Amino acid sequence: MDEVIADAVQRFTEWYHRDFNVLLTPEHLHGKRLLEAVAPDHRKPLREYLDTVGFFQDLPVMPDSQAVLRQMADRYELFIATAAMGFPLSFGEKFEWLRTHFDFIPTSHVVFCGDKSILNADYLIDDNAYNFRDFRGEGILFTSHHNVHETQYRRVNNWKEVAEMFL
Amino acid sequence: MDEVIADAVQRFTEWYHRDFNVLLTPEHLHGKRLLEAVAPDHRKPLREYLDTVGFFQDLPVMPDSQAVLRQMADRYELFIATAAMGFPLSFGEKFEWLRTHFDFIPTSHVVFCGDKSILNADYLIDDNAYNFRDFRGEGILFTSHHNVHETQYRRVNNWKEVAEMFL
Repeated sequence: MDEVIADAVQRFTEWYHRDFNVLLTPEHLHGKRLLEAVAPDHRKPLREYLDTVGFFQDLPVMPDSQAVLRQMADRYELFIATAAMGFPLSFGEKFEWLRTHFDFIPTSHVVFCGDKSILNADYLIDDNAYNFRDFRGEGILFTSHHNVHETQYRRVNNWKEVAEMFL
Repeated sequence: MDEVIADAVQRFTEWYHRDFNVLLTPEHLHGKRLLEAVAPDHRKPLREYLDTVGFFQDLPVMPDSQAVLRQMADRYELFIATAAMGFPLSFGEKFEWLRTHFDFIPTSHVVFCGDKSILNADYLIDDNAYNFRDFRGEGILFTSHHNVHETQYRRVNNWKEVAEMFL
């Protein structure tokens, strides 16, 4: 969900700027996880954003994700899985966000989990390569600032490339 | 989760008695789903209990489930999966309940889903046989009032029998 269909980095940079008056640019983030890109004493408060009411509300939708997934839904059985268990306050907001922006995916096909190895699927499109390690299908890496140096998996840079691969 | 480690039927009968002054007994429920056991005009309000704040709070723990799962955790990788997506208000209460009563299961191994065919596991212990239809592993039916006539799957009547099977 985050960094694949929902742009949580934008919310992070927005709140980080508001609270610390530092503006993170794509150049700061290139090749790094968010917490690696900030001053060490800013890491704890930034981690807490994820368990703050409002963080996952109204996140921007990643470009073309709706149109491409809507087309894919005609040919594939789609599930949206998100590692929400680390941030229990996010459950309601993530659920509402999906109802708002991806209402063509039935709620029965939404999964809140922690460890994605529990997913029984043929493909997993994800920005975190560690989710592919014990995944039974094929992992497709969705490009994000933190994974640009990862070379082990098939990569898609955006939803247009997902469409080319699957449609 | 419900009817396997958490006794939701007890909460149902308790609230039903409170609101309609009818006491459901095991005899009423034998061989029936809850909604089949009540007067047709009571079905809608009963269904709404599931999406009412407090319903999943403090549910009784099914006998022996903690002790047996704690032992199983030494030998198996355990996940708790629950079809929570139909009742978004239940997310927080279900999560808290698991932290309270099953703290030895890490949050990474909790799954809120709808369709359990998404689970990649070897066994699924569940009271609803329909969850086994597209499940990739083996379904083990946990006896509940509504499934007593189901004969297609291996059955366990209680957690002592789960222990005999897996330990």
